[in-house]
Amino acid sequence: MIPVNEKMLGLGEKSSAIREIFEYGNKRRAEIGAENVFDFSLGNPSVPAPMCVNETLVKLLEKEPDSVHAYTSGPGDRNVRASVAEYLNKTFGSEMTYENIYMTCGAAASLTSTLNAVINGGDEVIVFAPFFPEYRVFIEKAGGELVAVKCREDDLTIDARRFEESVTEKTKAVIINSPNNPTGVVISEKQLRDISGVLKRKSAEYGHIIYLISDEPYRELVYGGVKVPFVPDFYGETIICYSFSKSLSLPGERIGYIAVCEKATEWKRLFSAVCGAARSLGFVCAPSIFQKIVPECLGKTSDISVYEKNRNTLVGALTEYGYKLASPDGAFYLFLKSPDISAAAFCERAKKYEILLVPSDSFGFDGYVRIAYCVNPGMIDRALPGFRALAEEYKIKK
Amino acid sequence: MIPVNEKMLGLGEKSSAIREIFEYGNKRRAEIGAENVFDFSLGNPSVPAPMCVNETLVKLLEKEPDSVHAYTSGPGDRNVRASVAEYLNKTFGSEMTYENIYMTCGAAASLTSTLNAVINGGDEVIVFAPFFPEYRVFIEKAGGELVAVKCREDDLTIDARRFEESVTEKTKAVIINSPNNPTGVVISEKQLRDISGVLKRKSAEYGHIIYLISDEPYRELVYGGVKVPFVPDFYGETIICYSFSKSLSLPGERIGYIAVCEKATEWKRLFSAVCGAARSLGFVCAPSIFQKIVPECLGKTSDISVYEKNRNTLVGALTEYGYKLASPDGAFYLFLKSPDISAAAFCERAKKYEILLVPSDSFGFDGYVRIAYCVNPGMIDRALPGFRALAEEYKIKK
Repeated sequence: MIPVNEKMLGLGEKSSAIREIFEYGNKRRAEIGAENVFDFSLGNPSVPAPMCVNETLVKLLEKEPDSVHAYTSGPGDRNVRASVAEYLNKTFGSEMTYENIYMTCGAAASLTSTLNAVINGGDEVIVFAPFFPEYRVFIEKAGGELVAVKCREDDLTIDARRFEESVTEKTKAVIINSPNNPTGVVISEKQLRDISGVLKRKSAEYGHIIYLISDEPYRELVYGGVKVPFVPDFYGETIICYSFSKSLSLPGERIGYIAVCEKATEWKRLFSAVCGAARSLGFVCAPSIFQKIVPECLGKTSDISVYEKNRNTLVGALTEYGYKLASPDGAFYLFLKSPDISAAAFCERAKKYEILLVPSDSFGFDGYVRIAYCVNPGMIDRALPGFRALAEEYKIKK
Repeated sequence: MIPVNEKMLGLGEKSSAIREIFEYGNKRRAEIGAENVFDFSLGNPSVPAPMCVNETLVKLLEKEPDSVHAYTSGPGDRNVRASVAEYLNKTFGSEMTYENIYMTCGAAASLTSTLNAVINGGDEVIVFAPFFPEYRVFIEKAGGELVAVKCREDDLTIDARRFEESVTEKTKAVIINSPNNPTGVVISEKQLRDISGVLKRKSAEYGHIIYLISDEPYRELVYGGVKVPFVPDFYGETIICYSFSKSLSLPGERIGYIAVCEKATEWKRLFSAVCGAARSLGFVCAPSIFQKIVPECLGKTSDISVYEKNRNTLVGALTEYGYKLASPDGAFYLFLKSPDISAAAFCERAKKYEILLVPSDSFGFDGYVRIAYCVNPGMIDRALPGFRALAEEYKIKK
């Protein structure tokens, strides 16, 4: 055995369940043609980036062909950071400046930089199941321990009582993700007040701050007029982890930010810890030309009406076939109750109809499947007969 | 005190010595005009990116306006990885495929992903002083301990005997950096044979592999026909950490790669450990559009004749004034023996002439200053009278 780090080797050898399904899809696409495979496995935006992205890129290459590629400071270009702060202030009434904003290489970098900034060895970080599986990887690499608190079975929302019981003296931070991957649930104002109440009581009880890390790459992806509450309005000790991957459909380019809330205690020191963590992980600066498109693209999104239409088609048809699911308010995921006791068995059977789904145990929650509906609408139409046939096989009662 | 990670806070609050000098330069530029400040502090490429960079970017935005921004797999786009392998094979006679190449967000990411892949808590990593100061940050964050081995005082090359004495049972890896920052020294074939000999003897003695990490962002920046030997030709257990920041003058865009040598024992597992480490640090993929310019830009460089001219001007003039320095073969740094016992005092005195230099203690080596000559040639001409006056103040004997 070569003398590498076993834990890193394990992470590298065991690709995520989602990736495995995607690879199976690639095999089937090669075998029977892409149009015959109904792959709902990956959260890869299916609509193109808004015009502002490529237009601004071309403009920058014309106007600043050299300086646009230069280093920025670690936290990012000052004007870019100021534009993000200004946008947040205008939209949510916060009072941030460029000093609160750290530009990152996307959501994962936002999370790892934040977690490594706040975690000391042995600290616990609470997440709500179902949760994005990489949370475990990021928390454990930062020296922390993941504590999962299950959401309610009925509506997949956070159970405040169960949450309160799970906070211990070792709890350093709590991650929330709204709109949620994999459920699409948006955390309500009422729920945020409950979460904040728990955190305030427990911080007082244990005599130290518990940070709230708000992972919100899907913030703008909401449908039917739903509003995503601004988390710092409910709890001051909040760090927002944002990414433009989904809202601007540029997941490969790695651009996002961390907003260290101005209401956080000694937020400048907290910000410095984020700087130190990002530096030690090897993030020198976020890609400079993608930083510089941000001021032109803030508040804009890809054409998310496509996702809304997909959601409505799927929710309508699947409900008609007898499946149990809540209509998700946001993101581009749908969390379907598995008609089979084993979600894995249901996913296997769905493959007969070339339908690829992710079983929910990947998200720390049994008995469901995730359907990523950021896909071509035509694919949904072609997949529906398969979903109907599956419902009949399982004799689901309507 | 807020409950953040103290070590990360320390790293965030204490910016590097180099950055501090650069900030002082910004202040002076604002006060007396940029043309009157002779700032040799930063290794920021002063010549523009070669045409292939922006041309390929525009072409990609025209041809694949949407798919160019999509996720690639963690290790990168397969065609891009294959092109890097092919380039290395053609240039150096290696036998790599895409499976040996991991595309990264630049040199720092290459290093942190590699170090986190191989280090287990308490392992030692040997570096040669003077060394790039971030090595310490990266090694310690990965759970390792930095062991510095001083280069020879006379020619700043590696002292193989001193190196051999410093290898212990805990030595997991050795970092070399050629052409070197801060000295410009290129490690010769003879020296690589010596290093390899030490590593082979010590690996056998301790019964485990010692990895050689070759940090080579300056590989193409060599002058006067000097060749940089290909490290895996001398030692199989080699991991190359590369960046396009310097060769293509796009340091802000964060694009580089790791090449896990095909001669390394169980290199596929070593590669997997790199994948796992990068994933856990928050690197999802290298910026996709910058990955995709790589095949068009491999083997090309910015106009490095500017750096060579700068080097020749500076070496000629400073030698004439009586300063002691070796003519560097590569990179864009010159390591000058301080005429003052205290390099810091010399740097302070140089500020009188608006000359900004970095004292060598930042690099773990006393008594020198680093001159980054990736600057506008006119600035060198304007700075020379100051260097001459300083030599006179110190009564340097010619």
